[in-house]
Amino acid sequence: MQNADLLVFPRWIVPVEPAGTVLEDHALVVHNGRIADLLPAEFARQSWRAGETLNFPRHAVMPGLVNAHTHAAMSLLRGLADDLPLMEWLQNHIWPVESAHVNRAFCEDGVRLACAEFIRGGVTCFNDMYFFPDATADVALETGLRAGVGLIVLDFPTVWAQPGEYLHKGLELHDRIKGEPLLRTVFAPHAPYTVSDGPLKDVRKYADELGIPVHMHVHETADEVDTSVRIHGQRPWQRLKQLGLVGPNLIAVHMTQLTDAEIADGAENGVSVVHCPESNLKLASGFCPVGKLLAAGVNVALGTDGAASNNDLDLLGEMRTAALLAKGIAQDARAVPAAQALHMATLAGAKALGLEAETGSLKKGKSADFIAVDLSDLNTQPLYNVLSQLVYAGASRQVTEVFVAGRALLRNRKFTTLDEETIIAKAAEWRLRIKP
Amino acid sequence: MQNADLLVFPRWIVPVEPAGTVLEDHALVVHNGRIADLLPAEFARQSWRAGETLNFPRHAVMPGLVNAHTHAAMSLLRGLADDLPLMEWLQNHIWPVESAHVNRAFCEDGVRLACAEFIRGGVTCFNDMYFFPDATADVALETGLRAGVGLIVLDFPTVWAQPGEYLHKGLELHDRIKGEPLLRTVFAPHAPYTVSDGPLKDVRKYADELGIPVHMHVHETADEVDTSVRIHGQRPWQRLKQLGLVGPNLIAVHMTQLTDAEIADGAENGVSVVHCPESNLKLASGFCPVGKLLAAGVNVALGTDGAASNNDLDLLGEMRTAALLAKGIAQDARAVPAAQALHMATLAGAKALGLEAETGSLKKGKSADFIAVDLSDLNTQPLYNVLSQLVYAGASRQVTEVFVAGRALLRNRKFTTLDEETIIAKAAEWRLRIKP
Repeated sequence: MQNADLLVFPRWIVPVEPAGTVLEDHALVVHNGRIADLLPAEFARQSWRAGETLNFPRHAVMPGLVNAHTHAAMSLLRGLADDLPLMEWLQNHIWPVESAHVNRAFCEDGVRLACAEFIRGGVTCFNDMYFFPDATADVALETGLRAGVGLIVLDFPTVWAQPGEYLHKGLELHDRIKGEPLLRTVFAPHAPYTVSDGPLKDVRKYADELGIPVHMHVHETADEVDTSVRIHGQRPWQRLKQLGLVGPNLIAVHMTQLTDAEIADGAENGVSVVHCPESNLKLASGFCPVGKLLAAGVNVALGTDGAASNNDLDLLGEMRTAALLAKGIAQDARAVPAAQALHMATLAGAKALGLEAETGSLKKGKSADFIAVDLSDLNTQPLYNVLSQLVYAGASRQVTEVFVAGRALLRNRKFTTLDEETIIAKAAEWRLRIKP
Repeated sequence: MQNADLLVFPRWIVPVEPAGTVLEDHALVVHNGRIADLLPAEFARQSWRAGETLNFPRHAVMPGLVNAHTHAAMSLLRGLADDLPLMEWLQNHIWPVESAHVNRAFCEDGVRLACAEFIRGGVTCFNDMYFFPDATADVALETGLRAGVGLIVLDFPTVWAQPGEYLHKGLELHDRIKGEPLLRTVFAPHAPYTVSDGPLKDVRKYADELGIPVHMHVHETADEVDTSVRIHGQRPWQRLKQLGLVGPNLIAVHMTQLTDAEIADGAENGVSVVHCPESNLKLASGFCPVGKLLAAGVNVALGTDGAASNNDLDLLGEMRTAALLAKGIAQDARAVPAAQALHMATLAGAKALGLEAETGSLKKGKSADFIAVDLSDLNTQPLYNVLSQLVYAGASRQVTEVFVAGRALLRNRKFTTLDEETIIAKAAEWRLRIKP
């Protein structure tokens, strides 16, 4: 008998690797924050002794979801302005409010609200881009979530930094948090149209030196591409290529405007794409050709984007939208079947962050980042197919347990690291301050 | 002081008419199953005395949702087969299982499961099309929901009827239930490709005579249209026109393939369209041009379709998908703003059924069909705009109360007319019988 911290016996285990697998009568063994084993329940009872045993007779246990593109603090701007196109929404609503109100306290409270929604919806890792990434890092640590902390870079002055200061402040933060096992710093130059060549070259240099990914909005709208052609004489993708940014550490978000050559190029260079279907729909930004990207072999992850353009942070719902929309756009009901959608929402996100050896699937040796989803609800009955119920019928309220590195963040739908009442009270305070 | 049965004091009231209205500090007065008044809370306290008073300090009260296209009993086939195109899915999976297993008991149990999901998700009226509509009618009465009971018509023999029997059995059922205030019979010829001219002419004749609507799948896929052109030398729409079915009592479902002339024609003839975005996406059937239909003045309602092709029966989620998808398809973020999406999910459905004087909005004299949605959850905080939160961030779990004709069907998230455990146990039994 070996000792473990925790033995989990769910009705089903969906390890995500190999794709499409559903295990019954299996157990997950957790020790020192890692998956010590994944084996038939009978053998687990014979070979492992644990301090704690959890039985989930109605649940599927699966890897925690990875929300690969977020602006967490913007949860406080949820529903501030809707039904507007991207540039009008940004320039007339979001940016003015950000200039007037966003500070470190705003970011702390906003990230906390977002993290609560992440945890309740089964997200165990988020990849963020926003001002005051130091606040994002601190709140992520406080909540116990795994996070990509985006070192934002922009050409213009903001509440967070002056032009020229961004990279310096980012590198300072990188040095401060580099020992944290649950945090990963990520360069986050906002977009090709807001960051000029000089800082992008610096980003590439430091990203290579430090071996960290580059997270960026790319080809979000046709207008962005047209403007770049007018100003630079080339599409943003071409410009990023010339700057040396198109490579395996690029996390290109949105990518709604792509030629077949660009898709092939992305595949060849090993980039990751983050698809944010609900934000793209809401802002009418265009459709990411997910079917084509996957067929070409591109790693496609999923993100909710910020709550100001989604307006929830429900990655389970986003996975469903992604699976449905891909079929509609590809005009093929076989596009993005359930198993592939689950992969996009988990392992593909981990891979985008360079964390595929650490999280995103349930595999011996990986970090114990997992969730339990109760499938006994009306809307997931009867049950012919576990993957189908998770992707096409499941709702985030069915997530009852969330663990990151073996630590429980949600137990029986209750937060262990967050105080929901305080979070909601703070949100109400910001609401009154911003729009009295 | 006047006497009423019930006084409701919510934080907000969203009456749907006039569009975009959000009332604060108002009360809904219910008497004899009807909305006796809708007035400022202060006046309500001065002028009405009620047997029961309900305070919802965190809730929005709005009309119950109308799910305008369902196959309720198919809830028992949820997740049986996914990721397949319409005809392969129907011919190789759904139809064989239906032939082998569907009977009156299946329909009773399936409709009960669907009704539970409807009620929990804030639906107060559904418009159904399936075999054994007598079972649908009986279960609807038992649950207290308002329903359109579809008198299905097909050319071929099924578990429900032989060719030639459909209309007769339907008219018999019509005679049996015509006195029921919450039931509305609706002719339900399945589709142009499954019902020939003879029975369609009969349907038109009886629909005119009895003054009841005609509910039909129309132009669901490009293939349907192409096949009709090949066989009949005309598009289904043209054929329906010649048969006299294109008029104010037509409820045309799906309508993904439409020329501008057909859109104009639909508007001119006062037809209602039921948009089922999630089913259309999942089966890759095409995109209903919702923006264009609304601009032309067509009444566009929303439906989930059956759980076998959705796979949930969550009309709140369907409303969100409809609002988002319409923007993407129209390439205009202003398309289907929140208030319009709410109208589609409520009053437009009522109008399709000819029930706009009875339900679909909160107005003095109408039936008291209303729901309360708790907006204090994390995912609907902070709150800048009630309509935005309901459409873009709300989840069906936030529906806590459902009333139909003044009778509570859901109180504090608990069913009053249904036994959830029995419903789930029955679903599990069917699951084992169908796919042992």
